[in-house]
Amino acid sequence: MDFYNKLTISWKKNNSLLVVGLDPEPSKFPKELIEKKESIFEFCKCIVDATNNYVCGFKIQIAYFSAYKAENQLEKLCNYIKLNYPELITILDAKRGDIGHTSEKYAQEIFERYEVDSVTVNPYMGLDAILPFLNRKNKGVIILCKTSNKSSKDFQELILNNGNSLYLHIADTIAKKWNYNKQCALVVGATFPNDIKKVRDIVGEDMPLLIPGIGAQGGNLESTINAGINKLGSGILINSSRNILYPYIDNININWMQYSADQAKVLNNKINSIINDSFIKK
Amino acid sequence: MDFYNKLTISWKKNNSLLVVGLDPEPSKFPKELIEKKESIFEFCKCIVDATNNYVCGFKIQIAYFSAYKAENQLEKLCNYIKLNYPELITILDAKRGDIGHTSEKYAQEIFERYEVDSVTVNPYMGLDAILPFLNRKNKGVIILCKTSNKSSKDFQELILNNGNSLYLHIADTIAKKWNYNKQCALVVGATFPNDIKKVRDIVGEDMPLLIPGIGAQGGNLESTINAGINKLGSGILINSSRNILYPYIDNININWMQYSADQAKVLNNKINSIINDSFIKK
Repeated sequence: MDFYNKLTISWKKNNSLLVVGLDPEPSKFPKELIEKKESIFEFCKCIVDATNNYVCGFKIQIAYFSAYKAENQLEKLCNYIKLNYPELITILDAKRGDIGHTSEKYAQEIFERYEVDSVTVNPYMGLDAILPFLNRKNKGVIILCKTSNKSSKDFQELILNNGNSLYLHIADTIAKKWNYNKQCALVVGATFPNDIKKVRDIVGEDMPLLIPGIGAQGGNLESTINAGINKLGSGILINSSRNILYPYIDNININWMQYSADQAKVLNNKINSIINDSFIKK
Repeated sequence: MDFYNKLTISWKKNNSLLVVGLDPEPSKFPKELIEKKESIFEFCKCIVDATNNYVCGFKIQIAYFSAYKAENQLEKLCNYIKLNYPELITILDAKRGDIGHTSEKYAQEIFERYEVDSVTVNPYMGLDAILPFLNRKNKGVIILCKTSNKSSKDFQELILNNGNSLYLHIADTIAKKWNYNKQCALVVGATFPNDIKKVRDIVGEDMPLLIPGIGAQGGNLESTINAGINKLGSGILINSSRNILYPYIDNININWMQYSADQAKVLNNKINSIINDSFIKK
């Protein structure tokens, strides 16, 4: 099944546009897990099990595994999600990109080793650096456009001699030239809702937008959603990491899995109610 | 010792500006290695031992390890070079970059797990994505500027409204704003010697340039060197991968380690003779 179709199924499964970002940070784990042998896998598995009914998928941040020599646990996690929640989307957040021969190796790492549905990549090196990913036609290729960090303005907002900003030119190029297999999506940070709107206007209705940056990073949920959704009230993946992973951190007596599940449920309901309101207003 | 000082020592050690790129591709290994248990480590170790007298360092491409689940062999290799050839520079070619929290994890992966001297990073996300690398003040941070692949023109050559091209604006920003610890270097492909010259003119004499793309990718050695060297006849790292790693591929009866050593020796002599000629002409 191709990426856009799988995405549509995953959105419908729980009526959810919410993605849980798995950024496992051992120093923040509940006490009961810290001593466990594969604590990174165990923590993520618990979060996946707790939240699976309220999300459309999981964004797994590979840096949090490689810093702790936990590639085996990452393989195990990707496999666990695939086997147990086959209708949910997996995104490996790796921001890869290199010249052709090397990107081919990265594509092997991402899609043959970890067997995820999609990957984030960096557009700076141009099309041939992304081709090995695009050549896996059923896989999703989620390309950085306007990222959620403050310094994204350093280069992404530069104005070109045709009057466009760089990130909008990149969005336009991807929509018109790179998306010939209908497998591309864009990363647009929730911290800049006006920019999300501009990207949506340029790329049209079909291109999914992966939106990190609500919650801990400060992005406003309502303006983010209104800027990003397409005419069907869909087309976006709202990522939340820290707020769902570590809500118990100030309250160690709490049932942490239940707390994470509740956070995901509440956030998904909020997202859906904002979308409903937005349709009523129209 | 800081990166620029270590680089100067490594250039002097063998009177060499040559870096061997370690892109281990098991399908191209000599027959005697294919059956070995840690063949990726063994192959790279042989190349390092064979070429160490003709180079200033090694650029290790992490994708070739992660595609084959060979992180342990990568750790072993980095450690082997550090112990046995402490005066030679190690570059982990990883092209990383992410928002702050995540880049911190990548910096841990690169500098605490693999313990290399320097890393390649992608500038698209701006300064705060690079800060965790820059905060390791003794480490080298080698930032993509004008890459050697054909599609580098897609975005890197875009003209800004001030008349500059994007890659030159990035070079200028790094030289003026990011290099406050004197630890930055730039990647500039040998496939575009005119662009190397422009970058050198913008960043001044001190900034090292890592130049991939000679040999298999088609970059011309003489014009590359003349475009890149500073007034001291130095300041560049010329990378060669496939021509040194796999020269035996059409001749399986050859002593492959000796052949790789000879290739490195010849290339280093060529580089030095071009630099000498260039000084005589001046």
